[in-house]
Amino acid sequence: MAGLTLVIGNKNYSSWSLRPWLLMKVNDIAFAEERIALYQPNSKDALLQRSPAGLVPVLKQDSLLIWDSLAIMEYLAEAFPAIHAWPTDKAARARARSISAEMHSGFSTLRQLMPMNCRKVAVHVDITEALAADIERVQDIWQDCLDCHDGPFLFNQFSIADAMYAPIVTRFKTYGVTPRNARIKRYQEQILSLHAMRQWYEDARAENEVIESSER
Amino acid sequence: MAGLTLVIGNKNYSSWSLRPWLLMKVNDIAFAEERIALYQPNSKDALLQRSPAGLVPVLKQDSLLIWDSLAIMEYLAEAFPAIHAWPTDKAARARARSISAEMHSGFSTLRQLMPMNCRKVAVHVDITEALAADIERVQDIWQDCLDCHDGPFLFNQFSIADAMYAPIVTRFKTYGVTPRNARIKRYQEQILSLHAMRQWYEDARAENEVIESSER
Repeated sequence: MAGLTLVIGNKNYSSWSLRPWLLMKVNDIAFAEERIALYQPNSKDALLQRSPAGLVPVLKQDSLLIWDSLAIMEYLAEAFPAIHAWPTDKAARARARSISAEMHSGFSTLRQLMPMNCRKVAVHVDITEALAADIERVQDIWQDCLDCHDGPFLFNQFSIADAMYAPIVTRFKTYGVTPRNARIKRYQEQILSLHAMRQWYEDARAENEVIESSER
Repeated sequence: MAGLTLVIGNKNYSSWSLRPWLLMKVNDIAFAEERIALYQPNSKDALLQRSPAGLVPVLKQDSLLIWDSLAIMEYLAEAFPAIHAWPTDKAARARARSISAEMHSGFSTLRQLMPMNCRKVAVHVDITEALAADIERVQDIWQDCLDCHDGPFLFNQFSIADAMYAPIVTRFKTYGVTPRNARIKRYQEQILSLHAMRQWYEDARAENEVIESSER
């Protein structure tokens, strides 16, 4: 199989980039990384050269371009069946896809009011009613999944669903959201202690661009 | 296989409901339909009884609940491989998933300023810069796909990608968006002339609820 290249944005800020990057790293899938610093004077041109939608992430393989994090991860699930990117059980897989799709198109308040910012901790944000509802819904989703087994991840083994929610774990850390119970706390710690996540944080801290619109 | 039930919203307004409904109808997949009129006094309770996310559409099969249109369609693609819900070619499938995911999480301006309203035609909307960009991007996507073959649909045969964009075709009709060329126009006509689409329109006209926030 020809080499894979993943085009990503700033590690500190680009939550969409983190998702497929994490899935690949956790599963030891080899790929080249190409970073485009976002919100710089020439970012838009750089993006449009690499992505038809002008957005990151993009996965390249030969002439094939796959844009959007979820489409990339579906592609990886098919290309690398041994990693079991989705749960093997049909009902669990349907549930994993449901919560992943819900994350993909939803949680607009949480995404807007709590932008990913890996370098920061304990940032204060006013918790509006809509934001509180998003925070509760995320924890309901996690709880429902974690209640079904003893494993560390949402569907026991690490799956695309965990990759989809990993940026929320970083946000809860950044904005000091208290986990509702010990099981949720343990899940968050599990995500943050992944070797790949620690590497992502380290890389984010080494970046020097500051995107003002994502600073609270 | 146990019977399928699709829970949908108002046919006149619920673009997310149209997507899986259309995929199933075009492919003669049998299912029961359960409609919840949205934005009525008891809508929220009715939704939360049927869907963990409180959103339509939901697909039910025995105790299995799948919410979100894209997760439902991925489920159908796996459950009914003979319908080829995604293109069989790997590169085409990756592309189809990319544009479907782009629709799933994007085009917020178009969705907000041109809400689906099947009963109406020639409704005037001011075309802002952001709206014009969304309209152009949709037509770029369609053009790139249609340029690759002579078939009527985005990937020759009807696929999930067409289901994802069908509500945009209805919006372009409702708000009088002029197709950029004859090929795009033919594609739109192809979607609107599907037997299933004509049935959806007929059902939408028979509904008597009016959702003021979706009327322009």
